Amino acid sequence: MTITGPTTGDLREQRDRARREYDELLTRGLSFNLTRGKPSTAQLDLSQELLELPGAEGHTAADGSDCRNYGGLHGLPELREIFAELLQVPAGQLLAAGNSSLELMHDCLVHAMLGRLPGGQARWTDEERVAFLCPVPGYDRHFALCERFGIEMISVPMTDEGPDMDAVERLVAEDPAIKGIWCVPKYSNPTGVSYSDRVVERLAAMPAAAPDFRIFWDNAYAVHHLTDEEVEVADVLAACAEHGHPDRAFVFGSTSKITFAGAGVGFFGSSPANVDWLLAHSSKRSIGPDKVNQLRHVRFLRDAEGVRAHMRRQRALLQPKFEAVQRILDKELGGTGLARWTEPEGGYFITLDILGGGAADVVRLAAQAGIALTPAGAPYPYGKDPRDETIRIAPSYPSPQDLEEAVTGLAICARLVGYERALAR
Amino acid sequence: MTITGPTTGDLREQRDRARREYDELLTRGLSFNLTRGKPSTAQLDLSQELLELPGAEGHTAADGSDCRNYGGLHGLPELREIFAELLQVPAGQLLAAGNSSLELMHDCLVHAMLGRLPGGQARWTDEERVAFLCPVPGYDRHFALCERFGIEMISVPMTDEGPDMDAVERLVAEDPAIKGIWCVPKYSNPTGVSYSDRVVERLAAMPAAAPDFRIFWDNAYAVHHLTDEEVEVADVLAACAEHGHPDRAFVFGSTSKITFAGAGVGFFGSSPANVDWLLAHSSKRSIGPDKVNQLRHVRFLRDAEGVRAHMRRQRALLQPKFEAVQRILDKELGGTGLARWTEPEGGYFITLDILGGGAADVVRLAAQAGIALTPAGAPYPYGKDPRDETIRIAPSYPSPQDLEEAVTGLAICARLVGYERALAR
Repeated sequence: MTITGPTTGDLREQRDRARREYDELLTRGLSFNLTRGKPSTAQLDLSQELLELPGAEGHTAADGSDCRNYGGLHGLPELREIFAELLQVPAGQLLAAGNSSLELMHDCLVHAMLGRLPGGQARWTDEERVAFLCPVPGYDRHFALCERFGIEMISVPMTDEGPDMDAVERLVAEDPAIKGIWCVPKYSNPTGVSYSDRVVERLAAMPAAAPDFRIFWDNAYAVHHLTDEEVEVADVLAACAEHGHPDRAFVFGSTSKITFAGAGVGFFGSSPANVDWLLAHSSKRSIGPDKVNQLRHVRFLRDAEGVRAHMRRQRALLQPKFEAVQRILDKELGGTGLARWTEPEGGYFITLDILGGGAADVVRLAAQAGIALTPAGAPYPYGKDPRDETIRIAPSYPSPQDLEEAVTGLAICARLVGYERALAR
Repeated sequence: MTITGPTTGDLREQRDRARREYDELLTRGLSFNLTRGKPSTAQLDLSQELLELPGAEGHTAADGSDCRNYGGLHGLPELREIFAELLQVPAGQLLAAGNSSLELMHDCLVHAMLGRLPGGQARWTDEERVAFLCPVPGYDRHFALCERFGIEMISVPMTDEGPDMDAVERLVAEDPAIKGIWCVPKYSNPTGVSYSDRVVERLAAMPAAAPDFRIFWDNAYAVHHLTDEEVEVADVLAACAEHGHPDRAFVFGSTSKITFAGAGVGFFGSSPANVDWLLAHSSKRSIGPDKVNQLRHVRFLRDAEGVRAHMRRQRALLQPKFEAVQRILDKELGGTGLARWTEPEGGYFITLDILGGGAADVVRLAAQAGIALTPAGAPYPYGKDPRDETIRIAPSYPSPQDLEEAVTGLAICARLVGYERALAR
């Protein structure tokens, strides 16, 4: 079968049309922000009750302790109970901490740099080389942590069921400097991919040259469904234990995109040995987390079913925005051959791939038109997208109308860049 | 003048009386805790309003931003404004963070270990030796941080106006491995000493062999007065700047002993260069602190005068407890020559010195009688009190009646140990 491509004349016509549309865009003085996965005001309003909780007489935990006072380094048992089920971590092995899971990931790296991990032979600062596998595209803040601590980043490609496990297995088996891998197992940032059971199995089972190899399992979107297909990812702690690697996985989660993005609760779950290790280090740092905020969350969310019900209300606000992005991209870019994009079933992002490159140009043009996007390259180590293809769209924060205008504008930029490049070839 | 000491007969009689009282104590099944500087329930109740704040519609900061969402790494400007005055740090150089200042001290050490300080030539992990001066007796959690990071501790004695500055100046000038000194400048933990203007001046002015020498200025009791003599300590940041060492001091503070011990706000203040340094590192760790909790504190405390008024209510609860301890120690140990103790004008602790040693025995006997005390030695590096003299009493948490019983019991133990030791000499 032969496919006839567009003629140069066709391309020029398309380019000119995109140019006119872009020029018109410039006149409109837009100011939109699609950069970060920030909840919208309407989403935050869903948790408004938190602002008055736990209430005047409500400072006592289930065990009778006073949440206002010092102590309780593990976090509030009743909150850990609620999230144990949702994060697939036994409550006894789950810690509830401060207002972000990123902090916990940072601190796990710090404690591994400055103190030996269970199974490890040296502090990472005393190793000649420390490297992490980075499935790409991935989450820029993970990569920023590696960069900050001088941890070498080795990219591995994402497939539609998780990282390319042939590459992962080979690298981890042969290189003892590889101490970890970043994973966002469900509705991955930014691709929306969820890990298949087979991938989780292989991650748990694979031999690792480093005795202190860790999976940083950032389950940021554990309950953040966008469709009725509520994806379940296999239980990584159980799988690791089953395969004789009980200390392999660090599980992270938070309520940042459940309740308040800035005033939620972060969680860490792992094997008893890893939990003891983290507690031993964090006991030097803190006398305990903000248990009043944890109690506030217990009063508001009540139980795991309460969280699920709350997330259905979140979905009702988010799903139409994701659908709008799909609709606009279909309309503006469908059939052009210039781009492809993900249709995630959950999480916070859509990735738009500019085929054949030019993502940085698209982001630059969009910025000039007042549409702020995450820098092209951000989802790659050191901010360098080797194909210059990936653009991350975060649809949550803008109002539906703003989102529509912003994505339309972005698509115009993609067309303009795409046709310019096609003509230049 | 000749002073006639007690005869052996007198001593034996006193010892026997103390023994009888101690035996009686053992029969009473006491269970008291004087270990930590924990606020009492009545103190926490003073901030009960916080449990309903900021209130249903109250999530908007003065600058119009939404405290519920991500961002605002510096902390809420209006809260930093309130504490700027109280902590003697310009608001623009003061950060409001999570629920504890200990975390901030820990993180400053971490960032100095793993990233070069302004003025420094190397990360501390790359230095052959890193040491801190530890005025003793001091705060055990400071020393635990040093121990955790392998920072050598060099004790310097406390005088009644701060650390022995002759020793400090000599050591800091000659040893480039000395990177810092721990200071609790006001109502020091555990001695209650406040630093004189002359001591602050000398700390600010002294030459340091290490170009990245830092004063860790833990101003934990900045507004925690117990008498009408409200001690003012000189402004360390201003003094350091004046003497050409603008980056020398890190100032820490928190509301842990103002509002809720477990759910307050910690502060960091320093020079612009140090603040930028900390922000650059903490921006990798966090997208921002819990601004809702900060707003809650603004709504509750209102302004610096609001904090002062609140602290007068705290004082009304604490002062009688401190007075009771003095009264009991006077009655039980006064004139015995066995002990001396501090009469602090603020802060959270009284130190009881067992003259000639035996503090560990006293703590052990007290524990057997159900009276828990901080381990003897805790206020010294590595938990080793070279004279075995210092016992830290934390009077805040027990009820007035429990406190009275507990301190009476402690005094009985001190008498028993003291007379036993005198007889053994």
